[in-house]
Amino acid sequence: MNVNGSPTRTIWPAREGRAVDIIDQTALPHAWRTLRLATLEDAAHAIRSMQVRGAPLIGATAAYGVALALAARADDDALAATVATLAATRPTAVNLHWALARMHAVLTALPPAARADAAWREAAAIADEDAAQCRRIGEHGLALLRPLAEKRGRLDVMTHCNAGWLATVDYGTALAPVYAAFEAGIDVRVWVSETRPRNQGLLTAWELKQHGVPHTVIADNAAGLLLARGEVDAVIVGADRIAANGDVANKVGTYLKALAAREAGVPFYVAAPRSTVDFACADGAAIPIEERAGDEVRVVHGNDAGGAPAAVHQLPADEAVVNPAFDVTPARFVSALITERGTCAASGDGLLGLYPEMKPGSRPEPDSKSHAKSRPEGHGA
Amino acid sequence: MNVNGSPTRTIWPAREGRAVDIIDQTALPHAWRTLRLATLEDAAHAIRSMQVRGAPLIGATAAYGVALALAARADDDALAATVATLAATRPTAVNLHWALARMHAVLTALPPAARADAAWREAAAIADEDAAQCRRIGEHGLALLRPLAEKRGRLDVMTHCNAGWLATVDYGTALAPVYAAFEAGIDVRVWVSETRPRNQGLLTAWELKQHGVPHTVIADNAAGLLLARGEVDAVIVGADRIAANGDVANKVGTYLKALAAREAGVPFYVAAPRSTVDFACADGAAIPIEERAGDEVRVVHGNDAGGAPAAVHQLPADEAVVNPAFDVTPARFVSALITERGTCAASGDGLLGLYPEMKPGSRPEPDSKSHAKSRPEGHGA
Repeated sequence: MNVNGSPTRTIWPAREGRAVDIIDQTALPHAWRTLRLATLEDAAHAIRSMQVRGAPLIGATAAYGVALALAARADDDALAATVATLAATRPTAVNLHWALARMHAVLTALPPAARADAAWREAAAIADEDAAQCRRIGEHGLALLRPLAEKRGRLDVMTHCNAGWLATVDYGTALAPVYAAFEAGIDVRVWVSETRPRNQGLLTAWELKQHGVPHTVIADNAAGLLLARGEVDAVIVGADRIAANGDVANKVGTYLKALAAREAGVPFYVAAPRSTVDFACADGAAIPIEERAGDEVRVVHGNDAGGAPAAVHQLPADEAVVNPAFDVTPARFVSALITERGTCAASGDGLLGLYPEMKPGSRPEPDSKSHAKSRPEGHGA
Repeated sequence: MNVNGSPTRTIWPAREGRAVDIIDQTALPHAWRTLRLATLEDAAHAIRSMQVRGAPLIGATAAYGVALALAARADDDALAATVATLAATRPTAVNLHWALARMHAVLTALPPAARADAAWREAAAIADEDAAQCRRIGEHGLALLRPLAEKRGRLDVMTHCNAGWLATVDYGTALAPVYAAFEAGIDVRVWVSETRPRNQGLLTAWELKQHGVPHTVIADNAAGLLLARGEVDAVIVGADRIAANGDVANKVGTYLKALAAREAGVPFYVAAPRSTVDFACADGAAIPIEERAGDEVRVVHGNDAGGAPAAVHQLPADEAVVNPAFDVTPARFVSALITERGTCAASGDGLLGLYPEMKPGSRPEPDSKSHAKSRPEGHGA
């Protein structure tokens, strides 16, 4: 999507040599800074420190991380060690493991000498496919939103965290339908909850502003009141992992919005590509929840009055803090899942309806290119 | 309760002359500072700017504000203007209006020359009664908590905002049962949600620390996960206004915790004195919700690395922000109200069972001293 009027992705091959450039998302929205990832450790650090974040972008970055590592050494041991290093960076986002499994499957079948080039091509394919899938998520989501907008003559969407283009390679997941609605001329406005403690909502505000989409920032605590007052037509969030039964792990606080949406009779949608669905995970109880450092709560980052990066300590270092990064929204609170193949009920049947190749006894999961060939778009909507 | 080991109230008569001292709660928890209120405008500013906050403390401060004004001029016009000025400071907390109505009723019956001394005595009585009522709220709340603690051998309470002694004259409302449990030797721990955007949870952490009560700070967003995981035995919050049907207006975000508590089967208690109940307000829909400045969301206050007060701007000044300060929790989500007279169902019948003098056709509401005389303690538990 646009940054200062120019179409921009979140990760792209460097102009010279085997390296990739990313947007340093820890600096946003206070500063615009790109970083070059030239080594495996660069990529692992970028994921771990949340310079890149968002489940789909984590997956694409991990894929490029494999390519960067294999440029140096590409034997079986190096490949296994590379995958293990990247897999350990973040525990909850399943796209990470999906991308690593795909890279491993492609590369292990090749002789070591052919792996570096193949890894580079496969990582680029994962990035391109992510952008294409997100675009389709936008189209399928728009089909759900259009009747709501027609009923009211405008459309107020609430989101949580950042599941915009910054969380993916392009277009976003939760925000893809918003961008699609905006492009379709719908009077769409977005309630952006700041998403403590990491304040990824500020990234959402930043990217919506760059693209010109009207939006209003709220404290996370205000979501219930706005929903109860009828000021929201739909809630759309992304996901870090969707279990086989439709339970959704997403940024902590998502569950509270789902509860308030149900209470208000407002649809609660989860938008995510196939790579976010973990068919091996029976339900939300099996999803590991990352616990992050207490200083994410204790210390708040922003700009000082002069516009320079600054931080304030809200709490003394000896105050105990618990900081889970995600929560689980049970499938029964999810009105529909929005995927690149269409929309479905948040349930085992719903997911298998869109992804029949995942039924027990079906052939092993093909890569997503085969998906695209074997199934028509929009199935299951 | 204790500050640095010394019993401390939130408002007290100055040692010399007709003035009161308060703790500047806008400086907490980063700095300890007391302020002297010597005029009506001092008192109005203290309430408006949240140097004092918490519904009961707002009421006590307004009462002292009347006394400060009447020391200068005590005719009927001055009395009416004083009450009007103070009534306009904050719209949601009903204790403010309760205290002003009580002051007005007492003072208007006296000749102007007698009013200044009487106002001073009445304000002191309101403050003393608030402390005594909060102590009784603690006892009644403890009766609810003790069985939960006995079942598990410990007690994990979640709260929101600050309804501790800092929000009252002493003891607190929501935290009064926690302090009572702590004094009774129960292994009580408190989940303190930071309560964006004003972060009153940091006040809660500060006062619990001063008194030695174990606690852990969380982002507001983490409340749902902790409740769903079974890590909370009870949620206790205060209230800014309780409608006649038991609907509760309290700090924004309270409603989300109530939803998550119900979903988890965890009791959700609201602790407040009689002065927080607005029998003239039929239900929550009639409670005005204060909208505060967007800069409360945009700018975060704390200390810099050297410990000096500092602030960071999270969002540019031109980002639209909506900042409602309260939300309404429907009575059906409230397991019980905890008052100075005992506990009751959050309903019209429940409230009138505790306060039968408020039944239509009963004699006009007496002041709370008459309550204490006319009704046994603990009624309705």
